[in-house]
Amino acid sequence: VPSELELIQTFVRATGAAPLVPAGPGDDAAVLAPSGASCVTVDALVEGVHFRRATASLEDIGHKALAVNLSDLAAMGARPRWCLVALGLPRGFRRSEARAMGRGLGGLARAAGVKVVGGNVTRAPGLSLTVTVGGEAPDTGLLLRSGARVGDALWVSGTLGDARLGLLLLESRGNGPGGLLRRHPRLARGTMGRQRRPTARVALGQALAGLATACIDLSDGLAQDAARLAMASRAQLHIRLGELPTSRALSAAIPEPGARNRFAAMGGEDYELLFTAPPDVATQVLRRGRRARVQVRKIGEVVWGRGTVLVDERGRPVRGVHGFQHFTR
Amino acid sequence: VPSELELIQTFVRATGAAPLVPAGPGDDAAVLAPSGASCVTVDALVEGVHFRRATASLEDIGHKALAVNLSDLAAMGARPRWCLVALGLPRGFRRSEARAMGRGLGGLARAAGVKVVGGNVTRAPGLSLTVTVGGEAPDTGLLLRSGARVGDALWVSGTLGDARLGLLLLESRGNGPGGLLRRHPRLARGTMGRQRRPTARVALGQALAGLATACIDLSDGLAQDAARLAMASRAQLHIRLGELPTSRALSAAIPEPGARNRFAAMGGEDYELLFTAPPDVATQVLRRGRRARVQVRKIGEVVWGRGTVLVDERGRPVRGVHGFQHFTR
Repeated sequence: VPSELELIQTFVRATGAAPLVPAGPGDDAAVLAPSGASCVTVDALVEGVHFRRATASLEDIGHKALAVNLSDLAAMGARPRWCLVALGLPRGFRRSEARAMGRGLGGLARAAGVKVVGGNVTRAPGLSLTVTVGGEAPDTGLLLRSGARVGDALWVSGTLGDARLGLLLLESRGNGPGGLLRRHPRLARGTMGRQRRPTARVALGQALAGLATACIDLSDGLAQDAARLAMASRAQLHIRLGELPTSRALSAAIPEPGARNRFAAMGGEDYELLFTAPPDVATQVLRRGRRARVQVRKIGEVVWGRGTVLVDERGRPVRGVHGFQHFTR
Repeated sequence: VPSELELIQTFVRATGAAPLVPAGPGDDAAVLAPSGASCVTVDALVEGVHFRRATASLEDIGHKALAVNLSDLAAMGARPRWCLVALGLPRGFRRSEARAMGRGLGGLARAAGVKVVGGNVTRAPGLSLTVTVGGEAPDTGLLLRSGARVGDALWVSGTLGDARLGLLLLESRGNGPGGLLRRHPRLARGTMGRQRRPTARVALGQALAGLATACIDLSDGLAQDAARLAMASRAQLHIRLGELPTSRALSAAIPEPGARNRFAAMGGEDYELLFTAPPDVATQVLRRGRRARVQVRKIGEVVWGRGTVLVDERGRPVRGVHGFQHFTR
């Protein structure tokens, strides 16, 4: 059985040496250089709850455990810098398997400028990976959930619903909605890739700091996360489902626009950013999106009230979309 | 089922409001005020591996999950400030149970000046509590494992072996070694308390910063952790088992000194500090121990070589103590 230090060093090597004052992994705690305001977050991936070994490789799991945390920092506008990796390993887990997780996490960490500074290894009933990520808060203003103001425009990055579609494909082991895998194998594999290896919008989050008024990352689906942003901002979000950005894959799988947009609004694990900004900075928002190489799209407005109102392609309020709440007063 | 935010708020309330710049739990990440060099560490407690519900209350588990992390920061000489709490909850886990863990963690956190700044909740096959703790690195010099120099004295805090004895008592459900529970119920309960609610030597660690040359906390037993400090310092630790500080409880359970000291050296979960300091600062070490209200005791020296040499009450090298390594060159 490899020792804790050996296993953690596997992850450390995958990201290179850390920006530590004097002490790295192998001491009782990691030491971080002095910093301005910082952001910290923790998220866990648990076998049988967040992934199954049948449909996700160990590299995928390592990647995703970091990505979901990077997404949280992106939603703050923060620059991720370091992480701690806590592994729960079932009996018989091999060092080569830990190395595979380290490769997946390390590849993303290098791309994001994140160093593994330490960790913990314990026996556990099932495989789990709990990652703590820290980073620099933006100088130009944090992106909180609570900053949306009446009159702001509501924006979202990327496309919605792909990861949910990918999960359906992975779990069905069949063809998926609309015979997608048979008709459009490349598109289908793309959605499975988004499910297994999500992209955190780290560059976009940093670019939006100081410009956007509020931000949240979409982990539980637009409808539910929009309700959280609305609640934190004590405002109402008016969302036009017809404006939701969706992929060619989702169009191929669900040709009917109304059904497709509902599916996209109830996605999950999109790891896109939902944010608000004053209406007069739309041009700048679009420019910063281009600079961060991600499409951003206006999908609604912040209005007086509470909760969210989702309207369909003809402007009629929609019910039955999970997370939908309507607390207008 | 209580929501993630509600559950984490349970822990937050147990410590009071956090020293955050503007954002608390409930946003995508916690925000920490600017700081000097800092220390971060993570440790997990897993049901069936680190505790059993039959012998530890939920309050105990909450306390211990924080204590083991505070011990790591103590070993760096750091001042703990914040923590993130990642909960893995089995099906059917109730909010009242989460509150009980929050009380245990919160009581210790308040005493140590630590605030819960955020966390994560997920379904898991068994109960687990993964805590990340951060704190201020000492201005006066970090306590690393690697700083021991030939000629330094070797010191340890508190008493050794009690938590191991407590575990035996808890697991035996009987009388324990030497009929301890029957003959000395108060002493026996004390050792069970040390097993369930360890004390991290946070004040002592801070007091030793700038004075001690190296430090490690004893989680896996003196013999094994001493070998780690020796390896990091590229030196040899010469340890006199006859000098190990042991409690009245351990004396009552194991009257024979040789056996008692071997037991103490192979303890585990002592969460005492093992540290080195130049021989001419012995008086100051004793004074700082008194100020931190914990006994400190000289148990050996740092000598030329590698690994550890443990000698018995007559000065003869001892074998068969776990963690013993003898790489003299």
